[in-house]
Amino acid sequence: MNIILLSGGSGKRLWPLSNDIRSKQFIKIFKDENGEYESMVQRVYRQIRAVDPEAVVTIATSKTQISSIHNQIGEDVGISIEPCRRDTFPAIALATAYLHDIQGVPGDEPVVVCPVDPYVEEDYFLALKKLGEQAAKGEANLVLMGIEPTYPSEKYGYILPDSPEQTSTVNTFREKPDRETAQRYIERGALWNGGVFAYQLQYVLDKAHELIDFEDYEDLFARYDTVKKISFDYAVAEQEDKIQVQRFAGQWKDLGTWNTLTEAMEEHVVGQAMLNETCENVHVINELNVPVVCMGLKDMVVSASSEGILVSDKEQSSYIKPYVDQIDQQIMFAEKSWGNFQVMDVEEKSLTIKITLNPGNRMNYHSHVLRDEVWNIISGEGTAIVDGMEQPVKTGDVVTMQAGCRHTLIAKTELKVIEVQLGEEISVHDKQKFELEY
Amino acid sequence: MNIILLSGGSGKRLWPLSNDIRSKQFIKIFKDENGEYESMVQRVYRQIRAVDPEAVVTIATSKTQISSIHNQIGEDVGISIEPCRRDTFPAIALATAYLHDIQGVPGDEPVVVCPVDPYVEEDYFLALKKLGEQAAKGEANLVLMGIEPTYPSEKYGYILPDSPEQTSTVNTFREKPDRETAQRYIERGALWNGGVFAYQLQYVLDKAHELIDFEDYEDLFARYDTVKKISFDYAVAEQEDKIQVQRFAGQWKDLGTWNTLTEAMEEHVVGQAMLNETCENVHVINELNVPVVCMGLKDMVVSASSEGILVSDKEQSSYIKPYVDQIDQQIMFAEKSWGNFQVMDVEEKSLTIKITLNPGNRMNYHSHVLRDEVWNIISGEGTAIVDGMEQPVKTGDVVTMQAGCRHTLIAKTELKVIEVQLGEEISVHDKQKFELEY
Repeated sequence: MNIILLSGGSGKRLWPLSNDIRSKQFIKIFKDENGEYESMVQRVYRQIRAVDPEAVVTIATSKTQISSIHNQIGEDVGISIEPCRRDTFPAIALATAYLHDIQGVPGDEPVVVCPVDPYVEEDYFLALKKLGEQAAKGEANLVLMGIEPTYPSEKYGYILPDSPEQTSTVNTFREKPDRETAQRYIERGALWNGGVFAYQLQYVLDKAHELIDFEDYEDLFARYDTVKKISFDYAVAEQEDKIQVQRFAGQWKDLGTWNTLTEAMEEHVVGQAMLNETCENVHVINELNVPVVCMGLKDMVVSASSEGILVSDKEQSSYIKPYVDQIDQQIMFAEKSWGNFQVMDVEEKSLTIKITLNPGNRMNYHSHVLRDEVWNIISGEGTAIVDGMEQPVKTGDVVTMQAGCRHTLIAKTELKVIEVQLGEEISVHDKQKFELEY
Repeated sequence: MNIILLSGGSGKRLWPLSNDIRSKQFIKIFKDENGEYESMVQRVYRQIRAVDPEAVVTIATSKTQISSIHNQIGEDVGISIEPCRRDTFPAIALATAYLHDIQGVPGDEPVVVCPVDPYVEEDYFLALKKLGEQAAKGEANLVLMGIEPTYPSEKYGYILPDSPEQTSTVNTFREKPDRETAQRYIERGALWNGGVFAYQLQYVLDKAHELIDFEDYEDLFARYDTVKKISFDYAVAEQEDKIQVQRFAGQWKDLGTWNTLTEAMEEHVVGQAMLNETCENVHVINELNVPVVCMGLKDMVVSASSEGILVSDKEQSSYIKPYVDQIDQQIMFAEKSWGNFQVMDVEEKSLTIKITLNPGNRMNYHSHVLRDEVWNIISGEGTAIVDGMEQPVKTGDVVTMQAGCRHTLIAKTELKVIEVQLGEEISVHDKQKFELEY
């Protein structure tokens, strides 16, 4: 099975756990079979591998997520990098060209596309496999998954099939109806459109060439920012006559808000928290290393991270976006390909951060124009390179760097560092990268 | 006016703002006339000075509060240090002996005793003055303040006067009655006992010698830990026949729990917070430098500090103590005589703290057996002394100290420092202090 996972933008609907650089799909709040916490991406990837160990998985995403993806699921996954966000049709066209030109997938092979963040069980991935098998038959150009509705939702698009069979041709599509209309659709056998479908590779490649002027993957990548924003549903699915839908009746949850996310959590508490006996239907997700104490709460979610604290009625939690959009502060935590960093202290002319470098990893070789830096190694062993001079570093060592000097740290074991930045103007943009042979 | 302010123990009823070393009376959550935040201690002290600029104020407290008291209200205040906690009678006896032996207050001068944490207006301090004037007359040995009850509280002790006059002799005392009984007392003219009273100094000094075997202040201080725990009410007030009560009908609030504390707050929010329009009767006190977002809350208090986060229904907030008592963690923030420190990062073999030294102040000259330390000066100017060697320090300087070496920092301007502690065992008890002539 060739599967393209669409890994969407950042979004702040799950603030303070998601922010401009950490998307909800990377938050570790689910438990795997071993009782370890895993993220949506990790869960979905593990489930795909369980159903099809040979699956060729490609994640269509932006550059900012690459580090998190490799950190969380390793290197054994293709990544189709969108140079900028251009909605789902260009993203799927690019990933399809990537599969064809880079991965060498032939035009007649089926490809399944699905979002990276549904909360589902393994039967869902078995259904994806069948979707691919149906596409391989060539009866239709496009085979959609239709999810059996559990209530007349106003949030989803509906697919109206021609028949109640397991596999049916599609009669028409309807976008987010009101409740009453949704109820009528459901009575007529309508299904939710979860943005999941399969096709033979060549079909979408041809559509791409029809709608976008490009030569091959490299060319499409290069001119991506000039491509018109358009959704796959609008550009392709709704225009296609040879289109089928397969019913899926298993568990499917869309974890877009705190309200729906907490419903999928196996435990009421992740992190340090105490709830007294008068609390009812309360979820706490606490990433800080100090406790949260809850007294007399009902139907609430409390979430704390180094970005901030959310205390919300579950129902109301769907409306946080405009509030969170007003928050204009420094990114306080980020996962990187080499590890992570956390802001510890912000002063007018200094910034103190904690850096964790994973074993064998290194940061870029770089310099700053406007700030000096000091590394305090608090644990681990590695090598510091400052202006080309190599020196071993270990717990307790201090390395000082003047503005302008080139520097990097290479971790032998896990390396933890308190970095103190000092300057008149401290900005993430003040960074020049250099090549380093090491 | 001689006034003894009883500054009680730490208590965790206002966690996470109060902890083992920060008492509620030092939390800055009220606004003074200039719109600056002030604490209970600051508010009460300012109000006393407004009513009587010449008042001789003595604070009876434990050693741990001295730094905070001097930081918040300066040096122009006497402090009677209780070597350990021994309830109110020994504390008042010690403070009275301190006034007599150390401050030279004659035996016939009136002394007024009151807790440091009532939330009151200036009329309360005018009433204290009258209490002292009444005691000076010598009609009674003890003159109590009786607070006009506003509801039949089960939390307070009641004073039953002989008459409804402004000043009356006391008939009897009643401890925390049930609601119905309280209602009956009130109908008979009973008053709340707020622990406020006045006497001529010699009276309590004589009582002290009667009940405790000691020579003078120094001697009582030295043997304080052997003194029996007993309350002033029980040891003195309830035994005294020549006793009067003066009515007080002004504002008086006892700010012992989050519920009562938030009632006294002029503003709903202290610190960074956003409340959506569906929030009702919500108070947020946020000492962190990241925002709290509240959605759809009702009758709640949210409080965040580097110690932790409380999210509580206001009613339920009275019951936090047993929960908070279970929290066994490092002190994360402390005010000291020289400034303050905040824990930023805790690892197995390192601890990173931020130290702020007030201008002209210094930490103790000290050493550690089991840990090395590094100072990263992030702002200000001062002097570092390491093993007797003096060196000027300024922003950007780094000072490293091996275990065993003696060191101190002296602030010329406000000095901010990131201190990294490294060692197999890091403990606040690993500290040897030395004399330093500077």
